[in-house]
Amino acid sequence: MNKEHIGFIGLGAMGRPMAKNLLEAGYPLTVYDLNPEPIKEVIAHGAKAAGSSAEAARDAEVIITMLPACDEVKAAVLGAGGVLGGATEGALLIDMSSIAPHTSKLVASEAAKVGVRFLDAPVSGGVTAAENGTLTIIVGGDRALLDEHIDLMQAMGKNIYHVGDVGMGETVKMINQVLAGINMLAIAEAFVLGTKLGADPETIYKVIRVSAGNSFLIDARVPDYLLKGDFSRPGFALDLMLKDLGLAIESAKINKIPLFLTGQAYQYFSMASSWGLGKKDMSSVTELLEEIVGVKVRTGSE
Amino acid sequence: MNKEHIGFIGLGAMGRPMAKNLLEAGYPLTVYDLNPEPIKEVIAHGAKAAGSSAEAARDAEVIITMLPACDEVKAAVLGAGGVLGGATEGALLIDMSSIAPHTSKLVASEAAKVGVRFLDAPVSGGVTAAENGTLTIIVGGDRALLDEHIDLMQAMGKNIYHVGDVGMGETVKMINQVLAGINMLAIAEAFVLGTKLGADPETIYKVIRVSAGNSFLIDARVPDYLLKGDFSRPGFALDLMLKDLGLAIESAKINKIPLFLTGQAYQYFSMASSWGLGKKDMSSVTELLEEIVGVKVRTGSE
Repeated sequence: MNKEHIGFIGLGAMGRPMAKNLLEAGYPLTVYDLNPEPIKEVIAHGAKAAGSSAEAARDAEVIITMLPACDEVKAAVLGAGGVLGGATEGALLIDMSSIAPHTSKLVASEAAKVGVRFLDAPVSGGVTAAENGTLTIIVGGDRALLDEHIDLMQAMGKNIYHVGDVGMGETVKMINQVLAGINMLAIAEAFVLGTKLGADPETIYKVIRVSAGNSFLIDARVPDYLLKGDFSRPGFALDLMLKDLGLAIESAKINKIPLFLTGQAYQYFSMASSWGLGKKDMSSVTELLEEIVGVKVRTGSE
Repeated sequence: MNKEHIGFIGLGAMGRPMAKNLLEAGYPLTVYDLNPEPIKEVIAHGAKAAGSSAEAARDAEVIITMLPACDEVKAAVLGAGGVLGGATEGALLIDMSSIAPHTSKLVASEAAKVGVRFLDAPVSGGVTAAENGTLTIIVGGDRALLDEHIDLMQAMGKNIYHVGDVGMGETVKMINQVLAGINMLAIAEAFVLGTKLGADPETIYKVIRVSAGNSFLIDARVPDYLLKGDFSRPGFALDLMLKDLGLAIESAKINKIPLFLTGQAYQYFSMASSWGLGKKDMSSVTELLEEIVGVKVRTGSE
C-alpha cells in the first residue's frame, strides 16, 4: 500500500513524537509550526519544512493538525496562510487537537466548501503514549474515510475507535477528560489526606492498585510524580486540563446539564493554575494541596 | 496446620459470603447476627449458631466482626452480651468492618484490658470479591499477629497488606473510599453528559477503558449497572459510601485538611440518599442525574 503524503501542522509535546512515528513508518511528511525549533528537530528525522500551514497542505493527500485549542485550529485551518488556502480538492484534513465539538463542525463545514474532507480525531494517553505509538484515537466523521486511512492512524495509535459523526470524537474525548480530571483530583486529595493521617504513601499506592479506588492515573501519576515529588515534566499540562474541563462545562451549559464535580474540578485546577502550576503536569495540583496542608506525599515520608 | 476455631459476627451482604468461604476452607465457625435469617443460611453451610456475640466468642481462638459502622462494632464488642464478655484471654479479635480509625483504637485498647488482641482489617472489592474470596484486606496492628493467621485471611482475600499500627487499616481503607466515591461520581457525570450530547454510552465505555479516564469502577459499574439501567443489586450500597466519605471528612476535620472534592462528593451522595437511593448500589447516583437531565444511559440509547 502506498503511503499518503502528509502535511503535519503543530509540533508541540504531542505533535513531535506523533510526527516522528509517522516518519518512522515511512510516510513522507511536510511539517509546520509557529515555533522554528521543533521544525528543526523533526527535519532531522527526515521531514520537509514548510513556511506556513498553507504550504504544508499544498501537495498533501492528508493534512494533520495537532494544536492546543480552538483558536489555534481556526487560525491554522481557516486563517490567512491556513490549510484551506493551500489544500487541494479531495484532500483529507484530520484534526487531532482536543477542541470543542462545535469548532470541529465549523471547520468541517468550511473545509467542505473547498472540497476538503474532515475527521476529528483527538487522542488519549499523553506524551508517553504518543512516543510509544500507543495512543487511543477517538474518531468522528465518515467511517469509510477512517478505514481508508487506518494505516497512518496505526502508525500513531494502538486503539482506534470510530465513535460517530463529525464532532463526536471531540465529545467522547471531552468525556474522557472529565473522568481523568476528576480522578486526578481524587488522587491528590486522597494521598494528601492519607499521608497527613500518618499512612505511608507508597503503601497507600500498593493497596489502592488492587482496590476499588484504582484508576489509570494511579499508575500513570503516583510513582513517577507524587512519590517523587517532581511535577515539572508535563505528561499532560495542568492548563490543558483546565481548558478541557472548560470545554465540558461550556457544552453542559448549552444543554443545561448540571455538573457538580466537574465544576468543582474546574475551580480546583483554576486555583492551581493561578498559583503558577499551569505549565507543570496536571498532577502538580497535589503540590498546592501539600503546601496548604503542610505535608509531602513522598516515598519514605511516613 | 490446624484451623483456628472462629467466632464470626455480622452476616450481612459481605459477612455471609466471607463466612461461607471460611467454612469451605475447613474452619469451624460459630456465627451470630441480630437477624436470624442469615444465621440459618450459614448454618446450612456447616456453621454453628450462637445466641449472642459473647457466645460466638466463647470458645473461639479468633473472633471476626463484619458490621456496618462504628455504633454496631462498639455494641457488638463492648456492649452487654458483646465479644469482650465472652472472649477468652489470648483470643484475637479481627474487626473487618469499615469504621473510623479512632474507633478501632478505642476497641483495641478495651480489648487489651481483658487480654484480647486486636487487628483492624477492612476489605475492598465489594460483594463480588467477597463471594470469590478475592478481597483486598488492609490490615493494621501487630504484623506478627497477621502472619500467624495469614491462612484464614487467605480463605477470604487475595491481596493482604499490612499497612501499619492499629487504626491504619481503617485509614488506608478510608483513602480508598475517597477515591472510589469520587471516581463513581465522575462516571455518573461523564456518562450522563456524553449521552445527553448524543454519544452512544456503550461506545463511551469502550473508548474510556483504553483511555486516561479509565478506573476500576468503569469495568465494575458501567456494563452491569449503568448500561443495564438496573441499580437495585447493591454491590456496595450508596448509604455505605455516604458513611465512608463521612468518616474521611470527620478525620480531615480533626486535622484541618480541606477536601473540596470529597466534600462535594459527600453532598452528592447525601442528595441521592435523600432521594431514596440509599439501599441501592452506589452507582444509582446516576439515576438521580439521569432524572434531572432527562436522559437514560443505556445500551442502545444513542
